[in-house]
Amino acid sequence: MTPKIMIILGSGSDIAIAEKAMDILDKLEIPYSLKIASAHRTPNLVREIVKQGTDAGIEVFIGIAGLAAHLPGTIAAYTPRPVIGVPVDVKSAGMDALDSIIQMPYPSPIATVGIDRGDNAAILAAQFIGIHNDEIHQRVINLRKEYARKVIDSNESIVQAID
Amino acid sequence: MTPKIMIILGSGSDIAIAEKAMDILDKLEIPYSLKIASAHRTPNLVREIVKQGTDAGIEVFIGIAGLAAHLPGTIAAYTPRPVIGVPVDVKSAGMDALDSIIQMPYPSPIATVGIDRGDNAAILAAQFIGIHNDEIHQRVINLRKEYARKVIDSNESIVQAID
Amino acid sequence: MTPKIMIILGSGSDIAIAEKAMDILDKLEIPYSLKIASAHRTPNLVREIVKQGTDAGIEVFIGIAGLAAHLPGTIAAYTPRPVIGVPVDVKSAGMDALDSIIQMPYPSPIATVGIDRGDNAAILAAQFIGIHNDEIHQRVINLRKEYARKVIDSNESIVQAID
Amino acid sequence: MTPKIMIILGSGSDIAIAEKAMDILDKLEIPYSLKIASAHRTPNLVREIVKQGTDAGIEVFIGIAGLAAHLPGTIAAYTPRPVIGVPVDVKSAGMDALDSIIQMPYPSPIATVGIDRGDNAAILAAQFIGIHNDEIHQRVINLRKEYARKVIDSNESIVQAID
Amino acid sequence: MTPKIMIILGSGSDIAIAEKAMDILDKLEIPYSLKIASAHRTPNLVREIVKQGTDAGIEVFIGIAGLAAHLPGTIAAYTPRPVIGVPVDVKSAGMDALDSIIQMPYPSPIATVGIDRGDNAAILAAQFIGIHNDEIHQRVINLRKEYARKVIDSNESIVQAID
Amino acid sequence: MTPKIMIILGSGSDIAIAEKAMDILDKLEIPYSLKIASAHRTPNLVREIVKQGTDAGIEVFIGIAGLAAHLPGTIAAYTPRPVIGVPVDVKSAGMDALDSIIQMPYPSPIATVGIDRGDNAAILAAQFIGIHNDEIHQRVINLRKEYARKVIDSNESIVQAID
Amino acid sequence: MTPKIMIILGSGSDIAIAEKAMDILDKLEIPYSLKIASAHRTPNLVREIVKQGTDAGIEVFIGIAGLAAHLPGTIAAYTPRPVIGVPVDVKSAGMDALDSIIQMPYPSPIATVGIDRGDNAAILAAQFIGIHNDEIHQRVINLRKEYARKVIDSNESIVQAID
Amino acid sequence: MTPKIMIILGSGSDIAIAEKAMDILDKLEIPYSLKIASAHRTPNLVREIVKQGTDAGIEVFIGIAGLAAHLPGTIAAYTPRPVIGVPVDVKSAGMDALDSIIQMPYPSPIATVGIDRGDNAAILAAQFIGIHNDEIHQRVINLRKEYARKVIDSNESIVQAID
Repeated sequence: MTPKIMIILGSGSDIAIAEKAMDILDKLEIPYSLKIASAHRTPNLVREIVKQGTDAGIEVFIGIAGLAAHLPGTIAAYTPRPVIGVPVDVKSAGMDALDSIIQMPYPSPIATVGIDRGDNAAILAAQFIGIHNDEIHQRVINLRKEYARKVIDSNESIVQAID
Repeated sequence: MTPKIMIILGSGSDIAIAEKAMDILDKLEIPYSLKIASAHRTPNLVREIVKQGTDAGIEVFIGIAGLAAHLPGTIAAYTPRPVIGVPVDVKSAGMDALDSIIQMPYPSPIATVGIDRGDNAAILAAQFIGIHNDEIHQRVINLRKEYARKVIDSNESIVQAID
Repeated sequence: MTPKIMIILGSGSDIAIAEKAMDILDKLEIPYSLKIASAHRTPNLVREIVKQGTDAGIEVFIGIAGLAAHLPGTIAAYTPRPVIGVPVDVKSAGMDALDSIIQMPYPSPIATVGIDRGDNAAILAAQFIGIHNDEIHQRVINLRKEYARKVIDSNESIVQAID
Repeated sequence: MTPKIMIILGSGSDIAIAEKAMDILDKLEIPYSLKIASAHRTPNLVREIVKQGTDAGIEVFIGIAGLAAHLPGTIAAYTPRPVIGVPVDVKSAGMDALDSIIQMPYPSPIATVGIDRGDNAAILAAQFIGIHNDEIHQRVINLRKEYARKVIDSNESIVQAID
Repeated sequence: MTPKIMIILGSGSDIAIAEKAMDILDKLEIPYSLKIASAHRTPNLVREIVKQGTDAGIEVFIGIAGLAAHLPGTIAAYTPRPVIGVPVDVKSAGMDALDSIIQMPYPSPIATVGIDRGDNAAILAAQFIGIHNDEIHQRVINLRKEYARKVIDSNESIVQAID
Repeated sequence: MTPKIMIILGSGSDIAIAEKAMDILDKLEIPYSLKIASAHRTPNLVREIVKQGTDAGIEVFIGIAGLAAHLPGTIAAYTPRPVIGVPVDVKSAGMDALDSIIQMPYPSPIATVGIDRGDNAAILAAQFIGIHNDEIHQRVINLRKEYARKVIDSNESIVQAID
Repeated sequence: MTPKIMIILGSGSDIAIAEKAMDILDKLEIPYSLKIASAHRTPNLVREIVKQGTDAGIEVFIGIAGLAAHLPGTIAAYTPRPVIGVPVDVKSAGMDALDSIIQMPYPSPIATVGIDRGDNAAILAAQFIGIHNDEIHQRVINLRKEYARKVIDSNESIVQAID
Repeated sequence: MTPKIMIILGSGSDIAIAEKAMDILDKLEIPYSLKIASAHRTPNLVREIVKQGTDAGIEVFIGIAGLAAHLPGTIAAYTPRPVIGVPVDVKSAGMDALDSIIQMPYPSPIATVGIDRGDNAAILAAQFIGIHNDEIHQRVINLRKEYARKVIDSNESIVQAID
């Protein structure tokens, strides 16, 4: 199945954050590819991967990076497709990466999610695709219901435990 | 034409940020609607607007708010559609609003853009819709080219001015 | 005995902070109820719990949440009763939750206490109720005396230890 | 009429923040008194004012201060009544005052509101008193409705203006 | 020997920071006393201790506290003697305590040292006393030389180790 | 009259902060000298001024600087006398200067006062000298009384204005 | 004369910061070129300019940018020559740009200077070139002396003004 | 071989950061010397070392320090050669050291690298020297290629692992 989402890691050391995204995408049955490419060490590789991905029909890119996290912005420079950025907490509680990703100037937005939130990046990507894909849209709705159900169950157990 | 994007302002005082978004959407010829609804003063109005919007086919919501900026999160609680959040600089250089929007827990992402960046919110919304709408996709590409052209022109005039 | 205070947790994972509040309320013999309800996953549950609680005579709500901590604000949207907010340190040393709770716009205040301070939330709730309940007011005075006594005792032992 | 609320200013230069509180209290028809007393220059005056106020039946204290804002904490040291703290933005965007007020240790909570939010301090005080005073409780409900109405009206005018 | 310096701890839990100060004062052979007194739980005890200390000839006070660290400011309110403040890192990397101590308004300065720097507080106190006490002044000079010597020795060993 | 205090400015552009100190020292009738010397541009001048000042009987140094504010630390490197540091708000709301002055390692303390607080630096210097100079000690007490009196007067006028 | 330094601006709106650099380079008589190229809008232009510059013998690059300031990092990705980064204060007091420039991962350093410090970037560039160019090295020494002289003169006038 | 680079540590406790620099310099076969000298404890030693180093032909200085990190600025005060500063994370996540190093006033720049980045300091120093030393310039290019290769290899293994 052709991947709709491409996850790009700035460094192999951030793989745990990517796995949070991949777990959700597996659960939502959305095909994706995973790449490692550094905006600073291998700028040509980023450009090539992103251009090929765009041509091959990738609908959403997810860039995961810490420190001076330029990867999502570099991806956005080479594709008109929406790019989701995940700031990783390597130093400074992740504030350096957050600043480097979210404060993009016009007209180069990154859809930024919370620090280390690979999971939310995956949901967001599914929501974008779900705009025109009813099946995926329905899976997002189901996943949301499942988690709402967990809260409701926790609430019921707590109430019982105390009463 | 049925709006594809709904912009919701937490307060009428943030209208300037909404206008930055509306200018871009006008330019991209994407129909939108504009609402004012406060997550704290009028939670039922937010719920109603968002549910009706979702049922009426809104594809992307943009929530614009300052301070303890709960509006984008409240929108996300009532729709499975993607929500873009724009933190507004009212106090604390906008860091309070940024924290309140971006640090959403799983599975409730907000696609957050930079502080006061109504313009980037509009581009991002267009990118989401452009995934399956080739016309809008092409307009985004054209707008990006136009702005790239401006940089190239500035560079050329500067070089001439100095030489 | 009808509870006067309702503690609502945004997530079961913040239970340790709720326990700090419950320990003090037990000590002050003030009846309370405990709920788990997420502002983002289960907004309807929050609304329902808060409205029922308000109708049932809850006098003070305590909302405990981390990250983009919207729960206390959401509670305040559905009740005219005072709401105490406890920011939880999940990320960013709790500054994200603090910003999300304290910077509420007019006219939707949250009585915010320090990061992770479930204990102080309980004292504060007791003080509110103590305005018209002399017995609880007296218990707060006694508890304050007890802790003042501990400081005085520490001071005396230290002085003896050094002399 | 005996005041139920005492507003204490750490410095005459913060009067504008106190006026925001007084305007709301006037609107809610809740009697209050206003004092100026510095925790650092006149600690005895603070103690005396707070003790006399407590004995005279003050139900809620509001302390307004900037910089190393010790006033609300000093008030709390001398009364078992609830104390609301309003951090004032004098330097550091008010973060110094916020830190100095909210991070109170156990068992000395301050019900802290947002930076410069004299208005929210007044609402909060009214909510505390409203726990046992149905008339004031009703006025808070009415004020909330009035502001909800303003949002609804803004929304309607905006929608009309655009359509 | 009559103590010249009084160290006051806001809480017994900060004893490690006081010990850093006491070790240096022992080394400099400057007599001191140690007290525990909370600005919030036992304001009268602070006042009493400080007034008695001032009358008994204490020349410098050292206040050690974390969180909303009002203790040094409260000491300063009751004595015209210089007060040294040591912010303790309990939460927020000690920034809350630092803000609460250093940002004192005019005319109530606190001689603030770095976060957790009980050792530097002791040196500073010795320097104040050394202004008119040649023996203590000379001991400060010697201690500075000793530490300068340690750096010079480290430098020499490192150079040898590498060569 | 021989100066007891030396004020050193890192840059002539910070003269306004020095004037706040000089006004208070004039009022307290304490002789001082004023110098301009940059830790970075003229390190030898700083060393020379500080060594000569120390030899000439300067009892307290006040270093005033913004940005990477090394001046107070450089002064402390060349004198065993106490050094007061005043961080100046040039950029970053003065946090860069505050960090650069207060976080001095052992055994090189700077008695740091609040951002831009030349006035408090002067009071603090007077307190140090007042340890052994009863006349100056008495002037500090009088100045404190004067400012306490101003607060008491403000309080009385406010109370009258409202009644 | 062949330029040794290339200044690249991310946006024409930051020209004032570039002018601070150009004024110093003019004074030091070091030839430079000025370009405008955006890392996000025109990544290919950046690559092309940097590669051509490197081939043409540019010895130092200066990248000037605000917000999510990726320009210096992008320059560094395409040249082995040293890159100086100047963070510009557009939002967040320039902290976003500072984080985006300085926190570069290994092995892609940026020689970062203070916020808005185009002037220091020019000095630093001159120092790099001065390593092997004695004439420029001497000019840097002269410029340092000139500024040291200004401080010494200010000090002398101040001393005279007060005496 | 005469060292071209001098690494100066403010304290022996920061040796791990120096080792990161030395490892890279060894790899690049650039001779260096290592010194320990504190700007506060041993200002004369710093001056002497830096002046001797400058006279002996040191081309680049690297200053490594934490807290109120004045060492790089002090080095810069005594040499016209470029100085690289490495802020060390001792307290405050290294922000105090970063502020103390990067915010240097004109005309005293420090080429600042990221927090704890001894490795990047070494690369940067090699780049400066590489301006006029083709052999070292080539080694930098090779080292960059080696690290680019590692990213490319990681990417290939990841792709294989998933496929």
